[in-house]
Amino acid sequence: MIVLGIDPGYALMGWGVVESKGSRIRLINYGVIETFAGTPMQHRLRTLYQGVRDLVNIYRPDDVAFEELFFAHNVTTALMVGAARGAAIIAATEYTENLYEYTPGQIKQAVTGDGSARKPQIQAMVKMLLGMNEIPRPDDAADAIACAITHCNSGVAKEQFRMK
Amino acid sequence: MIVLGIDPGYALMGWGVVESKGSRIRLINYGVIETFAGTPMQHRLRTLYQGVRDLVNIYRPDDVAFEELFFAHNVTTALMVGAARGAAIIAATEYTENLYEYTPGQIKQAVTGDGSARKPQIQAMVKMLLGMNEIPRPDDAADAIACAITHCNSGVAKEQFRMK
Repeated sequence: MIVLGIDPGYALMGWGVVESKGSRIRLINYGVIETFAGTPMQHRLRTLYQGVRDLVNIYRPDDVAFEELFFAHNVTTALMVGAARGAAIIAATEYTENLYEYTPGQIKQAVTGDGSARKPQIQAMVKMLLGMNEIPRPDDAADAIACAITHCNSGVAKEQFRMK
Repeated sequence: MIVLGIDPGYALMGWGVVESKGSRIRLINYGVIETFAGTPMQHRLRTLYQGVRDLVNIYRPDDVAFEELFFAHNVTTALMVGAARGAAIIAATEYTENLYEYTPGQIKQAVTGDGSARKPQIQAMVKMLLGMNEIPRPDDAADAIACAITHCNSGVAKEQFRMK
């Protein structure tokens, strides 16, 4: 099973692609889709939309796992992050119905066994689980990989995490 | 000039199409794109995205005018409304670069001459300006028509309202 993990953001949208076979998880690729301040919003959203569309077409994931957003500093930020997430969801759902969502706490729990783990712990576990030489950078990409790993590990329970 | 006005919302996205010739404005059509609670988010966003895509393809607007969002009850609402707005913007920008935004205050000022006018005043003015027999319903559609009228009346000053 190929899983695309996405950490939705407006300036940086992290992504990571992993393949799971039985209990083994292999990293295929990861990165960020970047958009720049000062660029008109419609161009930034289109960059995110096309970026995710390219990712699903290139990696042909069976499932797409999103990190769920609960928090934003304020309403203005939430409107922008919500738009970025919407762009990613529309692009992904054009390719597959199999969209899932995990909260930051669920990802921490799945990756480290501790629902309140801190970022460096999660990143170190991602590096170890995937046999990487270095911690994946930037953080947004590491978060997306962690989300993809979480989905692989949810196994037969995954239906409860289907996007509602 | 054909203008599509959009009042972005998640459950109801209002739209109105008007044609301006000189100082005359003619109503072409209006309505709402509706999405239903209990439907998975990816379907709701895709309905909004495809709805706006259909509108631009049917009415072939020269310009698309969005009512700008400033306010949401809370961060969760803002994330959803932001996603809905993102869906509409992506669909519109696939068709045209000519996207504009007006705040509620700017729309009130343009339509009634009073930046703090209340909804019934705006709706009555929309009805009168367009020679309609009744106030357009629902409110979301009336707001979208008001936004399109505002854009028609911004004339040569319209560039300052281009989406940033």
